[in-house]
Amino acid sequence: MEWITKKNVLIVGLGLMGGSYARALSRLGFHVMGVDRDEEAVAYALREKIITEGSAGEAEELIRKADAIISALYPGVFPDWVQEHQHLFRPGVMMTDVTGVKSGIVYRIQELLRKDAEFIAAHPMAGKELSGIQHSDDRIFRDANYIIVPTEKNTARGIEWCGMLGRLLGCGKISVLSPEEHDEMIAFVSQLTHCIAVSLMTCSDNTHLADYTGDSFRDLTRIARINDRMWSELFMMNREPLLRQMDLFLGELTEFRNLLEKGDTESMREKMRLSTRRREAFNR
Amino acid sequence: MEWITKKNVLIVGLGLMGGSYARALSRLGFHVMGVDRDEEAVAYALREKIITEGSAGEAEELIRKADAIISALYPGVFPDWVQEHQHLFRPGVMMTDVTGVKSGIVYRIQELLRKDAEFIAAHPMAGKELSGIQHSDDRIFRDANYIIVPTEKNTARGIEWCGMLGRLLGCGKISVLSPEEHDEMIAFVSQLTHCIAVSLMTCSDNTHLADYTGDSFRDLTRIARINDRMWSELFMMNREPLLRQMDLFLGELTEFRNLLEKGDTESMREKMRLSTRRREAFNR
Repeated sequence: MEWITKKNVLIVGLGLMGGSYARALSRLGFHVMGVDRDEEAVAYALREKIITEGSAGEAEELIRKADAIISALYPGVFPDWVQEHQHLFRPGVMMTDVTGVKSGIVYRIQELLRKDAEFIAAHPMAGKELSGIQHSDDRIFRDANYIIVPTEKNTARGIEWCGMLGRLLGCGKISVLSPEEHDEMIAFVSQLTHCIAVSLMTCSDNTHLADYTGDSFRDLTRIARINDRMWSELFMMNREPLLRQMDLFLGELTEFRNLLEKGDTESMREKMRLSTRRREAFNR
Repeated sequence: MEWITKKNVLIVGLGLMGGSYARALSRLGFHVMGVDRDEEAVAYALREKIITEGSAGEAEELIRKADAIISALYPGVFPDWVQEHQHLFRPGVMMTDVTGVKSGIVYRIQELLRKDAEFIAAHPMAGKELSGIQHSDDRIFRDANYIIVPTEKNTARGIEWCGMLGRLLGCGKISVLSPEEHDEMIAFVSQLTHCIAVSLMTCSDNTHLADYTGDSFRDLTRIARINDRMWSELFMMNREPLLRQMDLFLGELTEFRNLLEKGDTESMREKMRLSTRRREAFNR
């Protein structure tokens, strides 16, 4: 019941994810504060009552008050923010993030973090193909998978706190993975699929085909509308696992292509039957 | 207003698509008849009032009565069915199909068809990842794109009749493409995406990842549950266009992979921005 005493939550970065966390926690009665360099984002969050207090500049007072800090910053600037501001942290502060890559972040943050604070990495498998606080929406968490990514430095209390946060957001299944397991998983499940969607749109000029598409093409390429700054950072921070997964997929699709060229219908059908069986596991 | 006189419609093949056509046309008041080799499918269609008359064996009487015939057969058996039964066709009968490949079908059917009948190829961009008449549902047509694929042998009356059928099914935009344009389009928009979804599921055993996936992965692989007989037939009948589209996509994804390996963030971002712009065109 950690959360009863940790009532002041600071969200760092008021974009789509930060705004969605803020909405969920404000709705539950937490005192939610927000900081962002963008004055308009802060003004919007205050006006819409997504946060109660906010600042686009000096945030010393807010940081000192925070019992919990949630970083919704781009992964590239997150360590610098901690370095610059941790002298203001309340002793015992709990910290988490929303970032989709972990090995490249969690060890660095834990290395530089004050010893009287705890950072526990986590994120929900949720988002939108739009960015900015105007599109924030706490319904994205509903039944989403929430993944906690502890290291040896985390405490049982930290892991429990983080799981509670996932539940409070409204997530469905809460899982625990190591940073390395997480990054291999995310490379396949999320990053590879975004690369595929982008490549489908860039491999030829296909915009004239919009009149002919069905739902499957629209579903497959929904994520081709992509925040290029964020995703290129995520890809670069997870380069090795993503390259491995891309190579596995490229090899497999090439094999399928070669079966088609040879006219080996039976082997194609065997792959389709395997695919059908495996896909069943993903229906919820 | 051709349809007012053409009231007897025969559906050949009572699977997912045949059943969905039958439901839509029965609802509109047509006298819908159905034939299928599977007795259970015919019994189901009669019991559920999807059709008014049906047969799993001898269908001479039904074929003789038909003003319009819609083939929802697997493409591989469709020409044989026409060959065997066309001596029973009423003079002036209008025929269409639901098949997702065209060049490999339409010229063959038009070549062998009686001169007093007209076959106009078409299909809606609609379906389901399930097969069988039990899953038929005429809501799949709602706002779907409907594509008419005439050749030089088709008459203006035939094209108009077919467009009317698309409207009656409830489809949204009706388009006209040549068989060759159609097949290149379908190779990219539908067949390539099914190959990608299958390869995502077969490139490694990923079923243990079901607990961690988000909606984008589920959307992308929904079509990985696939009717292996039907899709392998469709792929083989459209082999050249599909190989071309697969090679374009494989080349593009490999290029993206190489940018990642080199750490060329700016070029990756450029591709993402292009992808984002192009994808806008597909939002309806």
